[in-house]
Amino acid sequence: MVSFCADTPGGYGCSVTTEENTPPQYWYAADKQALLGRLRRIEGQVRGVHRMVEEDAYCIDVLTQISAATRALQAVAVGLLEGHLAHCVVEAARDGDPTAKVKEASDAIARLVRS
Amino acid sequence: MVSFCADTPGGYGCSVTTEENTPPQYWYAADKQALLGRLRRIEGQVRGVHRMVEEDAYCIDVLTQISAATRALQAVAVGLLEGHLAHCVVEAARDGDPTAKVKEASDAIARLVRS
Amino acid sequence: MVSFCADTPGGYGCSVTTEENTPPQYWYAADKQALLGRLRRIEGQVRGVHRMVEEDAYCIDVLTQISAATRALQAVAVGLLEGHLAHCVVEAARDGDPTAKVKEASDAIARLVRS
Amino acid sequence: MVSFCADTPGGYGCSVTTEENTPPQYWYAADKQALLGRLRRIEGQVRGVHRMVEEDAYCIDVLTQISAATRALQAVAVGLLEGHLAHCVVEAARDGDPTAKVKEASDAIARLVRS
Repeated sequence: MVSFCADTPGGYGCSVTTEENTPPQYWYAADKQALLGRLRRIEGQVRGVHRMVEEDAYCIDVLTQISAATRALQAVAVGLLEGHLAHCVVEAARDGDPTAKVKEASDAIARLVRS
Repeated sequence: MVSFCADTPGGYGCSVTTEENTPPQYWYAADKQALLGRLRRIEGQVRGVHRMVEEDAYCIDVLTQISAATRALQAVAVGLLEGHLAHCVVEAARDGDPTAKVKEASDAIARLVRS
Repeated sequence: MVSFCADTPGGYGCSVTTEENTPPQYWYAADKQALLGRLRRIEGQVRGVHRMVEEDAYCIDVLTQISAATRALQAVAVGLLEGHLAHCVVEAARDGDPTAKVKEASDAIARLVRS
Repeated sequence: MVSFCADTPGGYGCSVTTEENTPPQYWYAADKQALLGRLRRIEGQVRGVHRMVEEDAYCIDVLTQISAATRALQAVAVGLLEGHLAHCVVEAARDGDPTAKVKEASDAIARLVRS
């Protein structure tokens, strides 16, 4: 079984192919362009924090921006997880033994909860 | 489809039955007794925090205990989620459309990440 | 310098005494009885989670309750920290070198953010 | 009272001036250049996440990178808070009534804990 995330027409996809020459099945966590746009905005938020420090903004205002960037990153992560469950885990369940996929998703959730 | 968590011989189980008179299939998030034991210990930790405040323990020590109880609760939650994915979500995937189950799990993850 | 949290008339206090025979100065994080009441309720929430597992409640409902208990614990912690800053750190600043108190508070914040 | 963060020789400073024509007193959360370097690296981490999505990296690997970026942001925030307590709050305590500064710091902690 091969798992990868694929650039598919119209979206960002995770593919699980069980056999060679089988067309992969995709999930669309979200429109890939929308996901890329969100990440671009978060990159801009972090650059904004950098600029605030450079320009000696008030610490509390810097902290407010950091909290906003952190929340935006976590929202992206939850969206990716939802797509991962909906497609990679579900495909694995249908194709056979999903134990490894579930453990992997659960470890990712634990890292997210602790970060 | 009926979803519930069931006290099954030897464990704590979540059951998905698709038809009446079908024996439910269980997941064992962990041995139910072990899970109950962990929750009992967390209850004791919170009672310990209460006692520390009553006895005027130093604030920083109270905060350390609160962090420990919080981490223990989150570890229980991640374990429950793993079991839920491994059984309820996987069963739903095999039985038909898992969309609602995935959304529900994803919402629970979002609440956990934000708490 | 002696730091402790003291049961003072009308509240829960943290005291910083710099000299013997000096009456301690208190902070009132909140009314001590109110704080004890909140902790008692959180203990009840955790006991409720235990009962839900015992009675085989649906996993997602158990997770919702765990998130609520976690949030309540964190709110208590933030309140304790505010009182600690307002009194222990402020007193230390006025009495001399607050470096150790600030480091201690910052370490507690780091543990809280990571839990 | 004027609070601002100032670019001071050798560091990143938060200044509290109580009177005009009084030279400001600074705190050095950390060397300003070091802080800017950390933020630059986090910006690079987020750009890396963007590139991973563009190149269809495996979702779990994307999530691992998001967790790392989130943790790095939170570590910067805790460092900024420590500097803020050590300087802005301490100066406010010495100069008069620190109530507003403490409330502001406590609100920033609450946002951080919830994000």
